[in-house]
Amino acid sequence: MSHPASPPAFDVIAIGNAIVDVMAPCDDATIVRLGLLRGGMTLVDTDSARALYEAMGPAREISGGSAANTLAGLAALGARCAFIGQVADDQLGEVFAHDIRAGGIAFATPARAGDPPTARCLIFVTPDGQRTMNTYLGASQFLPAAALDAATIAEASVLYLEGYLWDPEEPRAAMRRAIAAARDAGREVAFTLSDAFVIARHGDDFRAMIDAGEIDILFANEHELAALTGSDDFEEGLAALAPQVPVLVVTRSENGAVCVTGGERFAVPAEPVERVVDTTGAGDLFAAGFLFGHVRGRPVGESLKFGAICAAEIISHYGARPEADLKLLVGAQVA
Amino acid sequence: MSHPASPPAFDVIAIGNAIVDVMAPCDDATIVRLGLLRGGMTLVDTDSARALYEAMGPAREISGGSAANTLAGLAALGARCAFIGQVADDQLGEVFAHDIRAGGIAFATPARAGDPPTARCLIFVTPDGQRTMNTYLGASQFLPAAALDAATIAEASVLYLEGYLWDPEEPRAAMRRAIAAARDAGREVAFTLSDAFVIARHGDDFRAMIDAGEIDILFANEHELAALTGSDDFEEGLAALAPQVPVLVVTRSENGAVCVTGGERFAVPAEPVERVVDTTGAGDLFAAGFLFGHVRGRPVGESLKFGAICAAEIISHYGARPEADLKLLVGAQVA
Repeated sequence: MSHPASPPAFDVIAIGNAIVDVMAPCDDATIVRLGLLRGGMTLVDTDSARALYEAMGPAREISGGSAANTLAGLAALGARCAFIGQVADDQLGEVFAHDIRAGGIAFATPARAGDPPTARCLIFVTPDGQRTMNTYLGASQFLPAAALDAATIAEASVLYLEGYLWDPEEPRAAMRRAIAAARDAGREVAFTLSDAFVIARHGDDFRAMIDAGEIDILFANEHELAALTGSDDFEEGLAALAPQVPVLVVTRSENGAVCVTGGERFAVPAEPVERVVDTTGAGDLFAAGFLFGHVRGRPVGESLKFGAICAAEIISHYGARPEADLKLLVGAQVA
Repeated sequence: MSHPASPPAFDVIAIGNAIVDVMAPCDDATIVRLGLLRGGMTLVDTDSARALYEAMGPAREISGGSAANTLAGLAALGARCAFIGQVADDQLGEVFAHDIRAGGIAFATPARAGDPPTARCLIFVTPDGQRTMNTYLGASQFLPAAALDAATIAEASVLYLEGYLWDPEEPRAAMRRAIAAARDAGREVAFTLSDAFVIARHGDDFRAMIDAGEIDILFANEHELAALTGSDDFEEGLAALAPQVPVLVVTRSENGAVCVTGGERFAVPAEPVERVVDTTGAGDLFAAGFLFGHVRGRPVGESLKFGAICAAEIISHYGARPEADLKLLVGAQVA
């Protein structure tokens, strides 16, 4: 038996949009008046971003970005993480970089000089806790392929990618190289579909990647499952997709989540939450909990439970970065 | 009888530091390790600010500034407000300006080009909810006297000033001119002592202003009362200061607040709070509630109650800007 290579330096390395969330509560009428896509994510240009910001109430700024949120959760749970993403050389870029590093996550992508500024996501949160996101990608869309080299990707057990990155052109190319690098190194590739509208634009790409067996762990919510499989029936969609990926995780909001792997199906109910304040990051943090269990070799049911606990924490306050001690929450529940 | 002049356009105009708060939870050991002044406000330079930020955990950014927080509360209650303060022409300056205007507050001070950047306050919040503030004044200390003209000051029933502004030189001079303008126009001058350490540096100035009868409404907490009067005994301090100002309001944290005016003493208990999350802005929001009652001509006891309600709201979450509907809270309590 040959000696195994030295163990990976990181549990998870993620590539994602480097975004600062700008969040404000709003009433339902505002969503209608501004013509926003309630509950969805819309890409906006500089002018739209300015107009929407002007229409927004007093806000707070909290680092975000889907994959970055997942890493923040993973790192809080004790996983060793690294992030690759593009910020600009400006104050919001400093905020993003500070928050990711302060969470114990390795982050070495150099800030990009000049325009455009760091990405931000204008998030309108309605009284039911639903978030309506309007993303100005800014510097994030200029992540160069040079920012990730094969050696770095090979250093992590799992490469985690967000579907959102398929929208901008440069990161999309970088992503494909990263997947190839991870597979060459024998690492796992985890992918989150991100948003039904991303699938509307890039579903063919995603289906091709899945068909080619490039995705080991796939995260989706019900809407994304429907968009990807073309079936509105949950069971039908699940049955169609499950055989194509080794691990399929589908979150179902207040109905918990399901994982199908090795032909077996596991389910977890949603964790009770006193009050849903802001659902931003619910899927991201579910992925964090699940992946934590996965990289620690825990049983699937336990990984799902971790996911549910992390998702419950994140929706009980503003922002998609954990506030409570996730380690404690997860530890207390499984003890 | 001569016709009165047209009623003032604003209820309250405030001059204050234009600051974005950068807030993160921390444990008690961190306060000790970093050598911070627990519960206090310390001015820091660029290098200290950078070092402290690096030592800080993942944070969130929420507009702050003592007088600006008070206005945010006043405007949320329905008062007509204007703010004067200096931001730089940068992203944090945009954040501050957006939040103050989005709150319905008039804000016309032009952003200042070039260095230094917009002021920020690095706030470490310990598990007991106590906040330890480290302020980098940046652009805020360059508020020019030209930013406020006598006509603008005369447009508000009350001029509200924060003691913090005595630290930087330019605003201090601007402040004195503003007080003179308000008095010339027959307006009231309200002043908050801000911090015991500000009094340590500028107590003589404050005492001279009070002696000269330039302050109509004075806000202090117990520590500031002690620092200003030189007496550690609350009753002794109150008895010494009360005859010198028409309206004296002293907040006492969990022991509520006291107002002495016209030789009469009024008191209010603290509003019950489920959990004290972050005490940042407690005094600022107490002042907001009290001033709202004052400008609406409500009885003193009721104004104190408004103050207690607003303070309770602000300490129940992160940040010094109101999240709940203050109008509703105040209305429900006095209905």
